Amino acid sequence: MASFSFKFTLLSLLAIFANSWMAIARDPDILTDFIVPPNLNGSEITGHFFTYHLNTTGNGGPDARETDVTMDEFPALNGQGVSLAVYTFPPRSAYPTHIHPRASELFLVTKGKVEVGLVDTANKLYKNSLGAGDVFLFPKGLVHYQYNALSRASASAVSFFGSASPGEVSLPTTLFATGIDDGILAKIFKTDVPTIQKLKSGLATPRF
Amino acid sequence: MASFSFKFTLLSLLAIFANSWMAIARDPDILTDFIVPPNLNGSEITGHFFTYHLNTTGNGGPDARETDVTMDEFPALNGQGVSLAVYTFPPRSAYPTHIHPRASELFLVTKGKVEVGLVDTANKLYKNSLGAGDVFLFPKGLVHYQYNALSRASASAVSFFGSASPGEVSLPTTLFATGIDDGILAKIFKTDVPTIQKLKSGLATPRF
Amino acid sequence: MASFSFKFTLLSLLAIFANSWMAIARDPDILTDFIVPPNLNGSEITGHFFTYHLNTTGNGGPDARETDVTMDEFPALNGQGVSLAVYTFPPRSAYPTHIHPRASELFLVTKGKVEVGLVDTANKLYKNSLGAGDVFLFPKGLVHYQYNALSRASASAVSFFGSASPGEVSLPTTLFATGIDDGILAKIFKTDVPTIQKLKSGLATPRF
Amino acid sequence: MASFSFKFTLLSLLAIFANSWMAIARDPDILTDFIVPPNLNGSEITGHFFTYHLNTTGNGGPDARETDVTMDEFPALNGQGVSLAVYTFPPRSAYPTHIHPRASELFLVTKGKVEVGLVDTANKLYKNSLGAGDVFLFPKGLVHYQYNALSRASASAVSFFGSASPGEVSLPTTLFATGIDDGILAKIFKTDVPTIQKLKSGLATPRF
Amino acid sequence: MASFSFKFTLLSLLAIFANSWMAIARDPDILTDFIVPPNLNGSEITGHFFTYHLNTTGNGGPDARETDVTMDEFPALNGQGVSLAVYTFPPRSAYPTHIHPRASELFLVTKGKVEVGLVDTANKLYKNSLGAGDVFLFPKGLVHYQYNALSRASASAVSFFGSASPGEVSLPTTLFATGIDDGILAKIFKTDVPTIQKLKSGLATPRF
Amino acid sequence: MASFSFKFTLLSLLAIFANSWMAIARDPDILTDFIVPPNLNGSEITGHFFTYHLNTTGNGGPDARETDVTMDEFPALNGQGVSLAVYTFPPRSAYPTHIHPRASELFLVTKGKVEVGLVDTANKLYKNSLGAGDVFLFPKGLVHYQYNALSRASASAVSFFGSASPGEVSLPTTLFATGIDDGILAKIFKTDVPTIQKLKSGLATPRF
Repeated sequence: MASFSFKFTLLSLLAIFANSWMAIARDPDILTDFIVPPNLNGSEITGHFFTYHLNTTGNGGPDARETDVTMDEFPALNGQGVSLAVYTFPPRSAYPTHIHPRASELFLVTKGKVEVGLVDTANKLYKNSLGAGDVFLFPKGLVHYQYNALSRASASAVSFFGSASPGEVSLPTTLFATGIDDGILAKIFKTDVPTIQKLKSGLATPRF
Repeated sequence: MASFSFKFTLLSLLAIFANSWMAIARDPDILTDFIVPPNLNGSEITGHFFTYHLNTTGNGGPDARETDVTMDEFPALNGQGVSLAVYTFPPRSAYPTHIHPRASELFLVTKGKVEVGLVDTANKLYKNSLGAGDVFLFPKGLVHYQYNALSRASASAVSFFGSASPGEVSLPTTLFATGIDDGILAKIFKTDVPTIQKLKSGLATPRF
Repeated sequence: MASFSFKFTLLSLLAIFANSWMAIARDPDILTDFIVPPNLNGSEITGHFFTYHLNTTGNGGPDARETDVTMDEFPALNGQGVSLAVYTFPPRSAYPTHIHPRASELFLVTKGKVEVGLVDTANKLYKNSLGAGDVFLFPKGLVHYQYNALSRASASAVSFFGSASPGEVSLPTTLFATGIDDGILAKIFKTDVPTIQKLKSGLATPRF
Repeated sequence: MASFSFKFTLLSLLAIFANSWMAIARDPDILTDFIVPPNLNGSEITGHFFTYHLNTTGNGGPDARETDVTMDEFPALNGQGVSLAVYTFPPRSAYPTHIHPRASELFLVTKGKVEVGLVDTANKLYKNSLGAGDVFLFPKGLVHYQYNALSRASASAVSFFGSASPGEVSLPTTLFATGIDDGILAKIFKTDVPTIQKLKSGLATPRF
Repeated sequence: MASFSFKFTLLSLLAIFANSWMAIARDPDILTDFIVPPNLNGSEITGHFFTYHLNTTGNGGPDARETDVTMDEFPALNGQGVSLAVYTFPPRSAYPTHIHPRASELFLVTKGKVEVGLVDTANKLYKNSLGAGDVFLFPKGLVHYQYNALSRASASAVSFFGSASPGEVSLPTTLFATGIDDGILAKIFKTDVPTIQKLKSGLATPRF
Repeated sequence: MASFSFKFTLLSLLAIFANSWMAIARDPDILTDFIVPPNLNGSEITGHFFTYHLNTTGNGGPDARETDVTMDEFPALNGQGVSLAVYTFPPRSAYPTHIHPRASELFLVTKGKVEVGLVDTANKLYKNSLGAGDVFLFPKGLVHYQYNALSRASASAVSFFGSASPGEVSLPTTLFATGIDDGILAKIFKTDVPTIQKLKSGLATPRF
């Protein structure tokens, strides 16, 4: 999610302030064609400002990975209500159950095969097995996951979001790696404290 | 005020239907003062239409319970962007971790003591212990729970939502009682299949 | 979550500026989980930030009173589109006819009996008599009032608004205590100037 | 969550219609260029559909009058978020204090002189005296009035609204000609019942 | 109403900053009655702030001209979602094909005769010939033009927009006077490079 | 999730009509998880409903082509505020200057090289030359084009839109193939009628 790193000058102070109050803005129909970041002069904007070079390099590890291109990484998206992400799925890797609180997601498989699942608020599971060129819609605010079931072939995908800052609630981490009390979790999941502790131990280090 | 008179022909049926696709439309700033339900004539609307009698009777069981008053239960809410719910918390009961995908929630404790927790998208847990008269904000789309830690005293609360249809994603049920494959869940939660199966057995019957 | 850290001797300046430019914001679907006020560091946010302690103490006087909990009093509400208010109604007290220009209101009686009235744009009056546990909806932008008809028992209520800053246009004050010319008012209310002056004298001091 | 299941009877037809009152739902950014009314075929739409002939004929009576051109009168406005009105002001006539709950208003004087007043939610009165070619902004949801102070010359104006259905709450009528109880009004306006009754008698017949 | 008072040596800095970050705002439902510009103190706001004096003086030249009254010219419009423009049409003058990307337009002829045309996304042309008192709707985002066909009489009009900053994409200029490569334009317009160059020569100087 | 079930002999009629009245809907934050089309029963919705198989087959002709996947082609997109398109660019082909009135566009080159250009409302041209993996943002409502400058290699791309129904105003066609009067166009483009007629002859048949 949004993180800023900066050197502290008066200008960057202004930039910070601007960014921080972006916070109060919504995904806007802006009153200008686009938003000039505070560290730029309008006359400095060229075609490069509207361009982003995707880095689709995999991570080398065993886990599925999502690389976000939101308004944090690509400032031109600010105010335009769109963003994207690139996924890589090593063999037998799962991208964990999660929710994007601020956007629907169009998931387009570009290589390999990906199993996807979606659960609506009536607790109904919708699944499919996708190949390259298949698109799947994950509606806003609903739990979903992706899984590469193949044992040898990796897969990749690109996703589009209807917000410049879709956000992500990763459910394993949120539930079992943020310090919620063991007893409360046991009560919530109708299980015993050792089971909760076992789950917590596997997830102790946030993956993100 | 919205007033409509129509003679019922096939054409008007179609016209009605046409509009019916607005039905699925959003939490609107409506173009009328309020929305007259289809089974009522505008002239039949009285003060009772704008009134709802809360049923705050507890459930008698050991579980915390939320009673919703959304546009489904209280049709006058349609188009007004607000709804509410009443909670009862027997001793030592937890209302499970969940997300409201379409609204922020203002939670007001009316009796007893309630522990609340909230996790943001940066995986930071915010907790507090509330008493009667305390209000807690659960921002839109974030995981939260409520818990009555006392062993003898019950608690109660009322919540307000910024949507006439806030929706609820109950996480124990969504994750472990909707049929997501054991192996995928084991991979996602970085645990073994027997642990997943144990969790599933406790939650096998959706509580809602 | 957007987090920003800066230490700064001109902090009050920023706070002022921030406030003034809150003005340009709407009730937003924000691009972050919540909005960190300019006088706080994101890391300083705890569960207390999301908590508000209602003060339901009555005013001791004869008038009905509304205590607001909007984003001005409870900064966490900024960007969440919700707020609330607590009402106390001494015996035989009326809360004057008014309009909230920016939100619908759900009014929940928590003690006693309250007569409520609502007028739509077609000039139709909707009334009801409410007891504890009754909820009444005042749609956005419409004139409404509340009245405790009992001569001995006080009443109380809590209201929820679908905006963090609902605003209030109090009609007695707006019409007769803001300096609108007597002759114009006499023409508007189709009466004589002495009647207008009599009304003005009773309301000369704004109650709010 | 909302779930409807029904067998197709007249009731279910009504249920469909139900949703149809979402139809009157908000001022939308529509998903088409414009909205074809249900009684027209798209191919029947010509330039006339987008045209409205203003009738600026005065009323002949002593009162100021507003002639609305909203989506009710000009169906092409549906979904476009704009509407207009034409005003005529006989000498010494006032257009009563009122509120548009769903739109800001740009008021353009086209002939004569018009005194205007506006009261904000902080109970501050803003006035001006306008001539032909002057524009005045009445922000959304605030009380305002217009008055032709001249004893011989009439005036006229055109207003634009930022909604296809701005609505109007006329305050004299809403307060004193809709049947609100005399005693409650006396309490609210801090006056006696005879004064309320005198006001009511002058306004007994709604002007609109 | 939001009011803030501050005296400050860095006022100009703030003003600049404020202006540049107006950019980040949308056409908002603001959280205050209106927006006090950063160079004003709330207590300095009077009725004059809400007033704009239209300058309807023609341009004397042969071209049709639009004089905008947006939030840039009339700061009170900020946050109110409305703006306007005045047009003058010398005999035989055309206001070029253009698009307003952020608002629908209600065009009201105040003098003379104006031919108008509108093309929807299905490439259908809608035309009409308007006289004084006629209103035409140009839906948001569609190409339209106005033309005074008379050889001797001038015409005038006033337009209202459903945004405080509607924007304008003038198509002759955008296409042929911004430096798009001749060869690409020839390919796009399915013509030869000399025809493109001829068009460019006539439009070499932006008219706006 | 809202689900409607009804059996009905006029189903196809309704389905057609429903589609046409999708028209009146906006890009909504819907009040349900997703929208069940009128020809389906909620219980018939499976993972296939959320899946779309892209057809990326080229057209074989010399022109660049865009294949849309909007809510018309992929009904699950209704209410989700997202859609996509696939582009194929034969050698030396241009996709004509156009505007999407209802959405910003993220354009991702998947093969080859594509020259892109964008003109803002200040008549400034922004260009870039993109390769596979490059993303370019076309802000909402602004004129843009794409061009494959290579004489032998084809190119392809996928675009994402922040609306389920972005719309497209193709400028060559809109301006010169919809019947706007030659004389008016000559006046607008500051050229002579024969030049207009030459342009029209090349574009006489709409490409879309």
